[in-house]
Amino acid sequence: MSRQNTHSLAAHRHQIRFCTQCGGAIRRQPPPGDGRDRAVCSVCGAIQYENPKLVVGCIPTWEDKVLLCRRAIEPRYGYWTLPAGFMENGESTADGAARETAEEAGARVHDLRPFALIDVPYVHQTHLYFTARLTDLDYTPGEESLEARLFAEADIPWDDLSFRTVILTLKHFFADRARGSFGFHHDTLAYPPRP
Amino acid sequence: MSRQNTHSLAAHRHQIRFCTQCGGAIRRQPPPGDGRDRAVCSVCGAIQYENPKLVVGCIPTWEDKVLLCRRAIEPRYGYWTLPAGFMENGESTADGAARETAEEAGARVHDLRPFALIDVPYVHQTHLYFTARLTDLDYTPGEESLEARLFAEADIPWDDLSFRTVILTLKHFFADRARGSFGFHHDTLAYPPRP
Repeated sequence: MSRQNTHSLAAHRHQIRFCTQCGGAIRRQPPPGDGRDRAVCSVCGAIQYENPKLVVGCIPTWEDKVLLCRRAIEPRYGYWTLPAGFMENGESTADGAARETAEEAGARVHDLRPFALIDVPYVHQTHLYFTARLTDLDYTPGEESLEARLFAEADIPWDDLSFRTVILTLKHFFADRARGSFGFHHDTLAYPPRP
Repeated sequence: MSRQNTHSLAAHRHQIRFCTQCGGAIRRQPPPGDGRDRAVCSVCGAIQYENPKLVVGCIPTWEDKVLLCRRAIEPRYGYWTLPAGFMENGESTADGAARETAEEAGARVHDLRPFALIDVPYVHQTHLYFTARLTDLDYTPGEESLEARLFAEADIPWDDLSFRTVILTLKHFFADRARGSFGFHHDTLAYPPRP
């Protein structure tokens, strides 16, 4: 996951208490003509909208192997993951996925294709994974990773994967590969997550 | 587009000036260990992350026709559009697309399938359109629409469509339909938009 994640998955869930425009106190109420409770400034009336975030990542491959990273950060310190993180303003989903792959695995990828879209509504996130090819083998773990390593399907550490979205994406990937045809997958994870 | 849009495409581009946690003044600077300028509170140090937003919508169909809405709001007042708007916290992309279709066209849809993902990095948005079937013909324009109407391909008002993402999505839709097979499409719109 990205820097942004390092410091604060928590920050993404901060309750808004003060107005970003004037510093005034926030009330939770539906603005005029809006049926939904919003963070509305009691002083200037500005509305602070809160919307889901996109997490973008890659399934980086080299021949028959997939590159995974072992997390050096919480949550899920020490577990294996696909490189992924919060999309940043000003970039495309594919650019964000390639950037995260560079940051977390020190790896360059090309030929990115959208592969799995997974809604995680209980944390206000949508995850989007791209299949991608490693451009070379000069990968190296970034600051947020303990290790980066290529795994054949038979060696994937299924019991030590970090997140449900990673498990699901890898299952789709190997199933499609066995079938000889890569589709586009869409899932919604229901609350609660497995323990 | 959604209520949220009605009131403030502008609100989505507000510069953050005060901290949502303590009301302190914001500085733009890279937080420790982060190479990117962020809105950081000069008083409590909280970081206010800003990320792209997902716009979700439908291509609602009935037999060979597509349901469009004519916008009763700016931007692009009076132009025809597919029902779409900002995804809300707590919902999935498909739920959001169905909600927007209900709000803008008063229409119920089923059998939603992801169809077109369009990155619009210069406004910090990613748009996701689903193909969808109208459940019945009891549609009626919502408060943000002047009209809702079914169009055969030959009657699509190409010169009076609202947004580039709508034009592109409809082009993909009719091309795939002519081919007899619906794929999943991914595009990135480069700045600047056409006039």
